[in-house]
Amino acid sequence: MKLHTYFRSSAAYRVRIALNLKGLAPDQAFVHLRRGEQARPPFAALNPEHLVPALEVDGPDGHHVLTQSLAIIEYLDETHPAPPLLPADPLGRARVRALALAVACDIHPLNNLRVLGRLKAMGHSQEEVDDWYRHWIAVGLTALEAQLAGDPRTGRFCHGDAPGLADVLLVPQMANARRLACPLDGYPTLLRIDEACRSLPAFAAAAPDRQPDAEA
Amino acid sequence: MKLHTYFRSSAAYRVRIALNLKGLAPDQAFVHLRRGEQARPPFAALNPEHLVPALEVDGPDGHHVLTQSLAIIEYLDETHPAPPLLPADPLGRARVRALALAVACDIHPLNNLRVLGRLKAMGHSQEEVDDWYRHWIAVGLTALEAQLAGDPRTGRFCHGDAPGLADVLLVPQMANARRLACPLDGYPTLLRIDEACRSLPAFAAAAPDRQPDAEA
Repeated sequence: MKLHTYFRSSAAYRVRIALNLKGLAPDQAFVHLRRGEQARPPFAALNPEHLVPALEVDGPDGHHVLTQSLAIIEYLDETHPAPPLLPADPLGRARVRALALAVACDIHPLNNLRVLGRLKAMGHSQEEVDDWYRHWIAVGLTALEAQLAGDPRTGRFCHGDAPGLADVLLVPQMANARRLACPLDGYPTLLRIDEACRSLPAFAAAAPDRQPDAEA
Repeated sequence: MKLHTYFRSSAAYRVRIALNLKGLAPDQAFVHLRRGEQARPPFAALNPEHLVPALEVDGPDGHHVLTQSLAIIEYLDETHPAPPLLPADPLGRARVRALALAVACDIHPLNNLRVLGRLKAMGHSQEEVDDWYRHWIAVGLTALEAQLAGDPRTGRFCHGDAPGLADVLLVPQMANARRLACPLDGYPTLLRIDEACRSLPAFAAAAPDRQPDAEA
């Protein structure tokens, strides 16, 4: 296996956490997003979406490039079932996937590099772009806090007392929120779970500043 | 089961297709997004994200509200396995989920109603907002076309010769593209698969203009 990653990509961060939770340590290739390496060979040919992460794997029918962080993590969970990242019951699985998708679909895509770049190209100042970023974080985290605080299935982590897929998505999103200095006082449940996660080595070792390609 | 839906929501459209493919016909409740009903009681209390679709289900431990279209569809696939919406092999499942997530994460969230409304509030004209919409459709569909055209696992549908999760996501996105008059000539594989899907009753009956709450 080879993971194509960038230290600051929160989608790559998710996959790094999942790999660590599974005890897997694939080779790594670094794709410098701010220098545009995702849109040039060799990476552009690997993933026509020009997004990290991508995971190269060898399967029974040859070599494959897996894309999309959630699809990669579900693949890792299916092929390396212990420890599980999803609960066993369909209703629990639906809940955890919905929490993960609330981050993956409704917060993160609005704030990734290409979207912020587009806003700048449309004439917006850095301040307006940061305001956009913080707006979608606030909308998304407010909903997530309500969903987690109001459900007895929330435990030490998003779903019970073991970390899983929803936690894997939450932690990189909270890191982005802190990086943009978003006010977080309104999300006590998210803060508590984020802290519980980051105390685990699998989460801590996946953090952007711990990666070989990290920059100040 | 009760589905909370809006005829023009492409996330609700996905779930309608999946329900039809499974032969399920839950009760429906209509949430008028353009009138803001998603942010007011009773719906706002059901889903703190204020997004459709939501699916109310009765489980072994009581009543639950499922959110996020992809989580709902995976739940339906797990609880009603025939016909399957995902292939049996983990690599195939990863491919189909990645195609679905490319739509769900990297095209649709940039073009939903609340995002377009935010751009207008930031001073952009309808023409600029439409341009934003078409830009992200073009970026996303170009990548999807490359991924589908370049893979021998693509068949009559996105993955082989039976419709599945990726097709369920593709068709509503193509409908949005047509509604905004996006040029589609560059996507022959997507056009072919979209047409094959729409010839099936499960897809046809889920179309926005066939819904009880449809408006001109």
